[in-house]
Amino acid sequence: MKSMALIISTDNPHSSCTTVRVPFYDTDALGVVHHANYLRYFEDGRVDWFRKRGVAYGSGLGASLHLAAVESHEHYRSAAHFDDLLVVCVRITELQRISLRFAYTIERQADGVRIADGETLHACVSDAFRLKRLPPAVREVLWGPEQGGSIQPEPAEPHARS
Amino acid sequence: MKSMALIISTDNPHSSCTTVRVPFYDTDALGVVHHANYLRYFEDGRVDWFRKRGVAYGSGLGASLHLAAVESHEHYRSAAHFDDLLVVCVRITELQRISLRFAYTIERQADGVRIADGETLHACVSDAFRLKRLPPAVREVLWGPEQGGSIQPEPAEPHARS
Amino acid sequence: MKSMALIISTDNPHSSCTTVRVPFYDTDALGVVHHANYLRYFEDGRVDWFRKRGVAYGSGLGASLHLAAVESHEHYRSAAHFDDLLVVCVRITELQRISLRFAYTIERQADGVRIADGETLHACVSDAFRLKRLPPAVREVLWGPEQGGSIQPEPAEPHARS
Amino acid sequence: MKSMALIISTDNPHSSCTTVRVPFYDTDALGVVHHANYLRYFEDGRVDWFRKRGVAYGSGLGASLHLAAVESHEHYRSAAHFDDLLVVCVRITELQRISLRFAYTIERQADGVRIADGETLHACVSDAFRLKRLPPAVREVLWGPEQGGSIQPEPAEPHARS
Repeated sequence: MKSMALIISTDNPHSSCTTVRVPFYDTDALGVVHHANYLRYFEDGRVDWFRKRGVAYGSGLGASLHLAAVESHEHYRSAAHFDDLLVVCVRITELQRISLRFAYTIERQADGVRIADGETLHACVSDAFRLKRLPPAVREVLWGPEQGGSIQPEPAEPHARS
Repeated sequence: MKSMALIISTDNPHSSCTTVRVPFYDTDALGVVHHANYLRYFEDGRVDWFRKRGVAYGSGLGASLHLAAVESHEHYRSAAHFDDLLVVCVRITELQRISLRFAYTIERQADGVRIADGETLHACVSDAFRLKRLPPAVREVLWGPEQGGSIQPEPAEPHARS
Repeated sequence: MKSMALIISTDNPHSSCTTVRVPFYDTDALGVVHHANYLRYFEDGRVDWFRKRGVAYGSGLGASLHLAAVESHEHYRSAAHFDDLLVVCVRITELQRISLRFAYTIERQADGVRIADGETLHACVSDAFRLKRLPPAVREVLWGPEQGGSIQPEPAEPHARS
Repeated sequence: MKSMALIISTDNPHSSCTTVRVPFYDTDALGVVHHANYLRYFEDGRVDWFRKRGVAYGSGLGASLHLAAVESHEHYRSAAHFDDLLVVCVRITELQRISLRFAYTIERQADGVRIADGETLHACVSDAFRLKRLPPAVREVLWGPEQGGSIQPEPAEPHARS
């Protein structure tokens, strides 16, 4: 029960999107983006998601705190090609004492075709890779909308945490 | 029911292992292997797994047949470092008419610590990325042990395919 | 002599710049961008350079023509870090019958520090990797300024090609 | 003059070779190894070269000493393909107070075709990226042959260092 109380509902409405232009070096001999690159595009989107909340991905979680990847899951839906402009959208779906879960979608901007989607789970760790609590102030920010430019309204009753 | 009949039991005993030496360029600023590389190590293991069954990964499935990644799932268990020698073991766990599923484990050779594990699902496709049946002859080989050097005995009653 | 006549003066004034945000996965265990990535940032800049001249890098050189890398040279001047915004500027410095040479500079936007520079030489090839002449119409465009938005004036006496 | 005295002749006979199996994810949409990967294969060879001299590439130069890449130069001679087994040979060609230069060749094992060659220049730096002298003991080892298994004879009059 206690641990469940820390889970925030998974319908967080605050997604952020960024674009990735497919470089030639990410294609493979089948003429399409090699699937292992999508996990990197997820990271491109996630770093941008942090930036849009004013949190520096590397150090902003607090002194010497980092996010270590614990798990990831990818679905490859359709092939992307060199020079495609992809839209990577990121949403936080779970925020616990030491972990965060993100959901991702990647679509091609030109035709809206879904290219890939998936999720990643991260744990907050110290420089020595020991599990650490996410600072409450950071948690507040992470669950919220983009800072200083978001057009998405803050939900009336943002999120019950107890 | 029919589709279930095509699933072969998931306890295929024939795994193959290869080693990967962690290159410096796969580490990140936290001093460890960046997690997105493990999906590539899975592929290193899978290609070697095919080679050990006499099947060229690229073209050997039959004329103009390829394996497209459909889904992948990774658990990152412990950090690996530059120059670690990793043992990547691969096992086929599902073999259907058009798809194959592989399970992977990655352990550090020096101390046996589990670094990562996961699975990938692939579909057999043509040059034009249309779904194609896996040739029966290839299926036979893929479900079996390494060719020409394996010491693992062929199971007495291998696996019903009909 | 004849071959020299094909070399266009190396002081082509038409450079184009693009930005690259350093991803975390491009850093290494020394905490800086691994040097092998700069060659990819050069390509990011070069592809953008082609786009700004209305030439699709992949196929726009003409039917089934491609640019194969022949040679590259990089100087690593200063370390870049995760999340740095880098400005990659590209200039064509040589345009021969079948080859092109590009010069690159990479600077950090925040402080103007030179991070890296270098050059690459490419040859025009067919699908079968046979050397092919660059189509004259493409050569014209490649030597010129950005299309449809460049503020750089066309030089009065553009460039003698004979 | 003084600085020249530190240059050791470039005809160091002690090369070391390692093999690299081309992974599918290193190919590009032209069906060949993307050229930016060869710089990584150079590093694979260089790390192995250090290992064969009993020097851990990361830390073995002495406490908190590292090798930062200063310059690199690559010639791409012929295309390599997925699953090719490449032989990467490395030789040290210059050893100064703070810098080392390496020469590389990459050939395909099956037919001996030269795929690429080039060189890299590295400087010895501290954790804070300040230039440091290479420890004399390390210099001795680096200029010599492989340890404990080399069949190459030590040259009669190895190399004057003063």
